[in-house]
Amino acid sequence: MTNHEFYMKLALQNAAAMKGQTDPNPLVGSVIVNDNRIVGVGVHMKAGEPHAEIHAIRMAGEHSRGATIYVTLEPCSHYGRTGPCAVAIVEAGIKRVVIATLDPNPLVSGRGVRILEEAGIEVIVGVCEEESRKMNEVFNKFIVRKTPFVTLKSAVTMDGKIASYTSNSKWITSETAREDVHLLRNQNAAILVGVGTVLHDDPQLTTRLPNGRNPVRVILDSTLRLPLEARVVTDGEAPTWVFTTPSHDPDKRKALEAAGVKIFVTERTGRVDPSEVVKLLGEQLISSLLIEGGSEINGSFFEQKLVDKVIVYVAPKLIGGRNAPTFLAGTGLEKMSEAVELSDVSVQTLGKDFKFVGYPVYPEGPR
Amino acid sequence: MTNHEFYMKLALQNAAAMKGQTDPNPLVGSVIVNDNRIVGVGVHMKAGEPHAEIHAIRMAGEHSRGATIYVTLEPCSHYGRTGPCAVAIVEAGIKRVVIATLDPNPLVSGRGVRILEEAGIEVIVGVCEEESRKMNEVFNKFIVRKTPFVTLKSAVTMDGKIASYTSNSKWITSETAREDVHLLRNQNAAILVGVGTVLHDDPQLTTRLPNGRNPVRVILDSTLRLPLEARVVTDGEAPTWVFTTPSHDPDKRKALEAAGVKIFVTERTGRVDPSEVVKLLGEQLISSLLIEGGSEINGSFFEQKLVDKVIVYVAPKLIGGRNAPTFLAGTGLEKMSEAVELSDVSVQTLGKDFKFVGYPVYPEGPR
Repeated sequence: MTNHEFYMKLALQNAAAMKGQTDPNPLVGSVIVNDNRIVGVGVHMKAGEPHAEIHAIRMAGEHSRGATIYVTLEPCSHYGRTGPCAVAIVEAGIKRVVIATLDPNPLVSGRGVRILEEAGIEVIVGVCEEESRKMNEVFNKFIVRKTPFVTLKSAVTMDGKIASYTSNSKWITSETAREDVHLLRNQNAAILVGVGTVLHDDPQLTTRLPNGRNPVRVILDSTLRLPLEARVVTDGEAPTWVFTTPSHDPDKRKALEAAGVKIFVTERTGRVDPSEVVKLLGEQLISSLLIEGGSEINGSFFEQKLVDKVIVYVAPKLIGGRNAPTFLAGTGLEKMSEAVELSDVSVQTLGKDFKFVGYPVYPEGPR
Repeated sequence: MTNHEFYMKLALQNAAAMKGQTDPNPLVGSVIVNDNRIVGVGVHMKAGEPHAEIHAIRMAGEHSRGATIYVTLEPCSHYGRTGPCAVAIVEAGIKRVVIATLDPNPLVSGRGVRILEEAGIEVIVGVCEEESRKMNEVFNKFIVRKTPFVTLKSAVTMDGKIASYTSNSKWITSETAREDVHLLRNQNAAILVGVGTVLHDDPQLTTRLPNGRNPVRVILDSTLRLPLEARVVTDGEAPTWVFTTPSHDPDKRKALEAAGVKIFVTERTGRVDPSEVVKLLGEQLISSLLIEGGSEINGSFFEQKLVDKVIVYVAPKLIGGRNAPTFLAGTGLEKMSEAVELSDVSVQTLGKDFKFVGYPVYPEGPR
């Protein structure tokens, strides 16, 4: 580990500790080093409050002169509440800026660096770039695409089944893995299932954690089969948004709306179009979406290349069954050579189970 | 780690290094310690040659008097080529015997210990027991059941598919995992597939490793559809045994036999009965069987509780498809709570892929 990496990792750690409290802003950390001594540490804590660099510069005071600043994201170039951070760095007399990753927004990316370089400051970009990008994966997508970062989560047996041939699925994984799912729900702005899951399981889709935040509950329901007595309709625990098609029953719509459900009507007929759903969710400023659907819902998002991240909990058990479903249906790809590779795949043990995380790399890039 | 474990692990390491060269005998290692100094190391190297304890006692010479001997398997009590090891231990003046695991054969298990204890020797059983049992898992089953230890191996995508919906499966895993499969073939006395796999892929089912041993090729083929020009018939690389039912065509049988194929006719009609197959293989002294079947072959062995070990290579890719097969078909179990748990599950990375190993624990015990 170089010195650059050492200081950048400290900045990353501080930034990561703020997870969940900076929305809609990204996580950013900063460290100022002068003469091999840390003279300032800063972190962005809350939207509307100072950026990480500003906190660090204030802490460093006069020690900023001639110092090196480490920052996990390119210093901003825009005039917000605190003025551009790039300008503040110049004014503080800092001599060198080490940046993990450039701003993901193509409209402003590189502008902060330009301000610094034009002031004669040495700029190094790319130290711990992957860590920084992954830390802000949701923000990075949403700021550019204006659609949510989509995580598909599933739990399977070792032989790849999400249920028995009789559709029985309670429970595949053990307690520890199921708790982890509640952390996922806590981290996502919305959770999505098909109406089939509601009809079969009547789930609440809430976060069962102390002080857990409940995601918005999104139900795909092309003909409004959602029962008025479903828990997602009656429990009042979180907003419930139903996406349906023009072929729904207007009376049922009125009844659901009267019960507090928000109805979105997509343009496409037949099945609800996943692309329309993520577009509409983006317009509602939903930056992250967790899909906990059945095989067909999952397959439809996958086939439209809408899945950004896959989390699979694998339970050490076998159930068998040629008609038992897997977590990804749809038509599927024709040849194994066309299979979508996952990048940055990790596996960890969670109690008796295993948790895989990976990122689909679509041949023509994600939509 | 206690001293006992330290010395037993050394004995286990020596024993494990002989893997593949002691058949039909088990792997056994031994260490003799006197006054905190190792005075003898022994290992069983080849059937017909001395057992591990004998080698260790010879190496220790007079230092055996008053010493402790570590041995990974209960010393034998029978008069073979070298006389019972238990008696040799007594005669060498050893004072204490530490044993990893008792003899798996219920007919003789405990007899070696009795000889030792009757001679006034202190006996400790169970140090590193799991490691020793796992090392000899094939021997332990075969000596008791007289049927082969059955390993089911499969390679799947992260969404649990062994092929696309068009039955395309080349390739799921990367080179490193495929090489590992050749190690598996090298370690198994026989390899089994259904005739469907032969018709679809025309595989050789040989071990592509320098000095690799080829397993006997076992094909399940209820009506003798195996083509005379299939590579397993023509290549002469290894014996090919076909298991068929009474409803086969006698002329085809003659033709296959003329080509050097050995035909076994099971009693059950319809599909070949997996239980009959393992029984007949046991009679042929096949102690280990690797199943590389398709979904249905795998499912039939699983449903008859014949699978002792499962090895699954998981490739980090997604293919989707509601009609794409998983590695375990058959009817399947009805409820998730009835799923067969795997014990001692491990996962390791192999290149880009992941390798899971586990042992099915059938509710009523294996057959």
